[in-house]
Amino acid sequence: MGEFELLEAIRSRLPAAGPRIRLGSGDDAAIVEPGGAIATSVDALIDGVHFKREWASLAQIGHKALAVALSDLAAMGAATGEAYIVLGVPTDLDEDDCLAILDGMAALAADTGTTLAGGDVTRAPALTLAVTVVGHAESADDFVTRSGAAAGDVLVVTGELGGAAAGLLVLESAGSSGDDDALVCRQLEPTPRLAAGRALAAAGATAMIDLSDGLGGDAGHLAAASGVGLRIDAAELPIQPGVAEVGAAAGHDEVELAASGGEDYELLATLPPTQLEEARGALAKTDVKLTQIGVVLAGEGVEVRLPGGGDLQPRGFDQLGRAAPP
Amino acid sequence: MGEFELLEAIRSRLPAAGPRIRLGSGDDAAIVEPGGAIATSVDALIDGVHFKREWASLAQIGHKALAVALSDLAAMGAATGEAYIVLGVPTDLDEDDCLAILDGMAALAADTGTTLAGGDVTRAPALTLAVTVVGHAESADDFVTRSGAAAGDVLVVTGELGGAAAGLLVLESAGSSGDDDALVCRQLEPTPRLAAGRALAAAGATAMIDLSDGLGGDAGHLAAASGVGLRIDAAELPIQPGVAEVGAAAGHDEVELAASGGEDYELLATLPPTQLEEARGALAKTDVKLTQIGVVLAGEGVEVRLPGGGDLQPRGFDQLGRAAPP
Repeated sequence: MGEFELLEAIRSRLPAAGPRIRLGSGDDAAIVEPGGAIATSVDALIDGVHFKREWASLAQIGHKALAVALSDLAAMGAATGEAYIVLGVPTDLDEDDCLAILDGMAALAADTGTTLAGGDVTRAPALTLAVTVVGHAESADDFVTRSGAAAGDVLVVTGELGGAAAGLLVLESAGSSGDDDALVCRQLEPTPRLAAGRALAAAGATAMIDLSDGLGGDAGHLAAASGVGLRIDAAELPIQPGVAEVGAAAGHDEVELAASGGEDYELLATLPPTQLEEARGALAKTDVKLTQIGVVLAGEGVEVRLPGGGDLQPRGFDQLGRAAPP
Repeated sequence: MGEFELLEAIRSRLPAAGPRIRLGSGDDAAIVEPGGAIATSVDALIDGVHFKREWASLAQIGHKALAVALSDLAAMGAATGEAYIVLGVPTDLDEDDCLAILDGMAALAADTGTTLAGGDVTRAPALTLAVTVVGHAESADDFVTRSGAAAGDVLVVTGELGGAAAGLLVLESAGSSGDDDALVCRQLEPTPRLAAGRALAAAGATAMIDLSDGLGGDAGHLAAASGVGLRIDAAELPIQPGVAEVGAAAGHDEVELAASGGEDYELLATLPPTQLEEARGALAKTDVKLTQIGVVLAGEGVEVRLPGGGDLQPRGFDQLGRAAPP
C-alpha cells in the first residue's frame, strides 16, 4: 500500500466535517471559518524519545499524541476545533498499524469535539507523530495566557499529581503495561482538561499552563511569564493514590514525584481570591477537583515549602536534556 | 544547551508579530485573529526520506521545509499567514545548526510575509521538520480547491517544469551541490508560487493544485477531485533550460522529466477559456509565466499526448513507495 492508498484509508475514517469546517482532508489545505480568534499549538512525539512502543498499544500512542497537543488548548481555555496530523511511519509498521494509531486519535477526537481535518503521511526512521491543534474563542481576550498572574492571586491545580511519573516507574520496573493500572493509564493515556480549562477561564483565571514538564518547571514558566513569584505548599498537593507506594519502592518521595514528575497534564492556574469559590463550583460540574496549592507573590521564582520545613528544588523535564522524571 | 534555552534562542530570532497575531511563540499556544476564513496544511521533511543532509546546507533544508508547506497555500490562492514548526534534532546537530535551519526558514518567511508563530523542538533519530502553515482569505469561497474544474476549461501551468528532477540527477551524479546551478537550486530551494496563486484565484481559476508529486500524478489528483479528464499536450510543456542535457546524460527524456519528475512546486490550474487572457496579464505582473498545456474534458484520467504521436504514462511520486523521480 502506497502513500495515496493509505491516505484514502485514513480519510475514510475521518468525520466529514466539524462545525467550522468548510473543507476537510484531501485537498491542498483544509478550509475553516473560525468566527473569532484561534489558538494554535504543535507537539511532536517520537518513539524512543517520548514513548516506547513496547510499553503502549498503537491506539494509546495515537491517543497520547493528540492528548498532549489538546492539553495546550485546555491551558488557553479554548474550545476545541481542528487537528492536523503528521504520521512518520517506520518500515516495520503496516497499514493496519497506521489505522490503529489513527483509531486512538479518532476516539479522543470524538470525545473532545475535535475534527481531524488533515495531515501528512511519510516514511520515518522511528514512529513520529506531530500534531497541530487549533482551538477557538469568540475573542482573543477570552484566551488565558501564562502572563496574567498578579500578586495576591491564589494558585490552583486541577485533578491529581504524580500519577504519570509513578506510572512510568511501574513501566520501567515491569517492562510492559498489560494491566489496567490507574498509574500506568495516567502515563499512557493522559486526559486533556479541556472542560476544566474552559471553566477556569470563564471563572476569571488570570494565568494558566498545563503540567507537561512537571509542576516545578511549569510553575516556573508561569511565574516568569507573569513576572511574579509563586509559593507552593507541598502539604496541599493533591497526590494521586498509589503514588506514595510506587515511589517508595523505587526510592522516590511522593512529593518529589508530584512536584518534579512530568506529564500529568493537569492545569495550573491563578485566580483572584474572590473568584475561587466560583471556580470550585464550575469545576465540580466537570467532575475534576480543584485544589488551592499556593499563592502568587511579588518577586520571582517558585518556592515549594515542604511539610517538615525547608524547600524542595523541583526539576523540570527537558526534552533535549533528556532529564527523565524524576 | 537544553530545550528551553534553545527555544529562547529561536524565539529571539522570530519577529514579534504579524498582522493578525495577538500572541506569538512562548505561551501554550499562539493567538491569531483570522478575520475571515483560513486554509491550513501540514508537511513533513525527514532526512534520508525527503532530502539528504550532505546535498544541502542547513539553511536550504529549512527553506525547503517551509517552501513545500507554503506551496499548498499557493495552490489555494491564499494570503500567507502563520507557520508552526516542529524541529526534530539528531544528536550530531548543535544549537548553531538549529539556528542555521531556522535562518533559512526565517528568510523565506520574511520574503513571503509569513510569521513563524510557534513550534516544538525535540530530539529525533534523524533531522525532522514538520511545518504547519495557515493562510487567509476574506471568505472560504475565495479559496481555490482541486474540485472545481469543468469540461471546456483550459489547463495552465506556471513557470517551468523538470528543473527539480534534473537538479536531483545532478546531485545524484555529482554527490553534492557546491555550485549555483539553476537546476540544483530548483531541487534544493523551491519557490512557492504565492503571488501567482493569488493572481490565478483572482482571475477566476476553477481548480488548482501544486506540483509536488509530478505533473502526471498531480494532474490525476485534480482530475479525480473535479470528476473530469485532462488532456495535456507534451509539446506545450514549458521545460526549464538545461533539463534536456542533464536528462540525456542520465538516459531520461526531457518530457519524461517534466511530466513525471516531482518537486517543481509550480501551480497547475484550470480556467474558463474566457479568463485566460486576464490570468496571463495578472501573472505577467508577478514575473511568473503562464502556459496553456492542455484542456479539461468530460470523462476521467490524464492523457499526455507526445509530440511524435502516442501517449506518455506519467508516474506520480509516492513517499511511502519511494518511487523516486523519475
